Amino acid sequence: MDSRVIKKRIKAIRRRLNEKKINCLIVTKPANVTYTTGFSGDDSWAVITKGRVYLLTDSRYIEQAQKECSSCTIIQRTDSLAKAVAKLVKKLKSVRTVTVEKSTSLADFEAVKKSVKARLKSVANIIESVRSSKDSSEVAAIKTAGSIAAQALKQTRRYMKPGVTENELAGMLDFQIRKLGATNSFDTIVAFGPNASRPHHQPGKRKLKQKDTVLIDFGVKYKGYCSDITRCFAVGRPTTFYKKVYDVVQQAQTAAIKKIKAGVKINDVDAAARKVIDESDLPVYGHGTGHGLGLEIHELPFLKAESKGKLKAGEVITIEPGVYIPGKLGVRIEDDILVTETGSKLLTRNCSHLPLLTN
Amino acid sequence: MDSRVIKKRIKAIRRRLNEKKINCLIVTKPANVTYTTGFSGDDSWAVITKGRVYLLTDSRYIEQAQKECSSCTIIQRTDSLAKAVAKLVKKLKSVRTVTVEKSTSLADFEAVKKSVKARLKSVANIIESVRSSKDSSEVAAIKTAGSIAAQALKQTRRYMKPGVTENELAGMLDFQIRKLGATNSFDTIVAFGPNASRPHHQPGKRKLKQKDTVLIDFGVKYKGYCSDITRCFAVGRPTTFYKKVYDVVQQAQTAAIKKIKAGVKINDVDAAARKVIDESDLPVYGHGTGHGLGLEIHELPFLKAESKGKLKAGEVITIEPGVYIPGKLGVRIEDDILVTETGSKLLTRNCSHLPLLTN
Repeated sequence: MDSRVIKKRIKAIRRRLNEKKINCLIVTKPANVTYTTGFSGDDSWAVITKGRVYLLTDSRYIEQAQKECSSCTIIQRTDSLAKAVAKLVKKLKSVRTVTVEKSTSLADFEAVKKSVKARLKSVANIIESVRSSKDSSEVAAIKTAGSIAAQALKQTRRYMKPGVTENELAGMLDFQIRKLGATNSFDTIVAFGPNASRPHHQPGKRKLKQKDTVLIDFGVKYKGYCSDITRCFAVGRPTTFYKKVYDVVQQAQTAAIKKIKAGVKINDVDAAARKVIDESDLPVYGHGTGHGLGLEIHELPFLKAESKGKLKAGEVITIEPGVYIPGKLGVRIEDDILVTETGSKLLTRNCSHLPLLTN
Repeated sequence: MDSRVIKKRIKAIRRRLNEKKINCLIVTKPANVTYTTGFSGDDSWAVITKGRVYLLTDSRYIEQAQKECSSCTIIQRTDSLAKAVAKLVKKLKSVRTVTVEKSTSLADFEAVKKSVKARLKSVANIIESVRSSKDSSEVAAIKTAGSIAAQALKQTRRYMKPGVTENELAGMLDFQIRKLGATNSFDTIVAFGPNASRPHHQPGKRKLKQKDTVLIDFGVKYKGYCSDITRCFAVGRPTTFYKKVYDVVQQAQTAAIKKIKAGVKINDVDAAARKVIDESDLPVYGHGTGHGLGLEIHELPFLKAESKGKLKAGEVITIEPGVYIPGKLGVRIEDDILVTETGSKLLTRNCSHLPLLTN
């Protein structure tokens, strides 16, 4: 990882830590450890102090850490993470209060409390709020993750034929992603026909029929960054009702995307999509209209009716309205969008020409 | 999910709750929610009281919950999980103290604390300790997950030819798993040559060469249950040193497996494997010798030098010693084993005949 990028991030994080008078933060969330150190492994924590960033890792990851984390001090732990933190804090004589991320488990927090001889506090979303605005290299990575998703989906379309199971189609898509040098950003959802009414359907043995519909919700991880798209297809001519629902969902997505701009209220974007569906007398979806994405598949900001706050330039969000009618159908369309000062930029444009398939 | 199975589990969990005088447990860990309710979705919590088990889920999962959870009371939440818990607890007038799992994040714990008008406590490993001993249907699922892993690996061997990349081989293996109707239990590790010295290497663009070695660490999830195996192969005749290391690792694994029996000290099993490697003057691995597996890929018990406690009948554990020499090689052999009263039973036997490949 480019050490200048890391330094810039740490500077932004330290600014927030200073505002909150925090001089020692224990970073336990894997994506936050990656963001602050460049390390892409597991079971490791970072510690940010006024002068340094430490990575606490173990023998399994030491080679990888030396390769990835040129700008931080690597400590090879043999003890538990909590004990390794305690040892480090003991050395850092100026540290009287240690702050832990609120995403930490109670068990880890209590273990740190037991080992560390310092006051303990917790704080939420320090690194997450810095992470929400992406720099150009992050946007580029998400865009590439989107392009790979589009390519993989294109190469999978020829397998979208009657007889294939949801599981096989999901497997073939995942294989194309691997062949393109990337991995999944989450477990691929493939749902045929009425199975799509469950937004988080797990692919199963159901076979694609002659007149059938397909919903695919999947994403790619590239250089640690996620894309997340949903596309719907019909095998043979879709029913008039399916086509109507599809058009409404597409209009709902367009309405929300049109609203996007730095400074716009998040719940206004959410409401714009819901309004289109509601006015079409179709059931309004129960999930959020979208979410931030980056190192995590779901991160700040979350686009919901109850969301407070405004969109910020540099945020990358999904817009994914849907219509779900149990036993009948499910339609969702999802793209990844960069928030800019003047509006927005579709990062998954190259996927968007994949229309409702009628073959 | 068979409601008799769920009832038996709840009975065992209630016994432990009674011992600790807990009459209301908030279950937040996904695997524990699955274990107590049968629900296989996300973003849902369970609440166990004296008389009932509740599942708090949202509109995305309501259809799935109705299908999967016949033995519990399903509550469709529109609020946050913490607020949904608060509403429920308010109705349960006999509940004065609410206990939360220690695996819960500080943020969730604090949200529950803010909403729930009752005393709050935390507890660790109540459900995990029940989960560690598997019933026959769980053992059968893990065994099938092992069989599918063996079949998938067998079908992938023909792609193990010079020119294939780590990424492609991982993708092909994952595709075979999907074709067999299952999914990965974790991200497949494929490491060629010296890349295998990093126990958690992420597959990349490196191509397999004429004289090369392959380490594959992967697993299958079947009916929610995980298998986890590691196999090593050589393309062409391996070097004498590689062969020696391989033999030592195999002997280390055999030594540990021989020790396994209900009532045996966990750290004795760990020590048995390390001793063989140490006495061969090879570097002793820094990771644990194994771990429990079931609904989670890593669960109780953990086999480490510092582990306390004894093995129990019904536990399913991995035994996975390795030798890692940075820049040179990495060898690890891993199988899944059921602990019995009289010894052990290899659940991945059908994978074990996959020898060091020399083709």
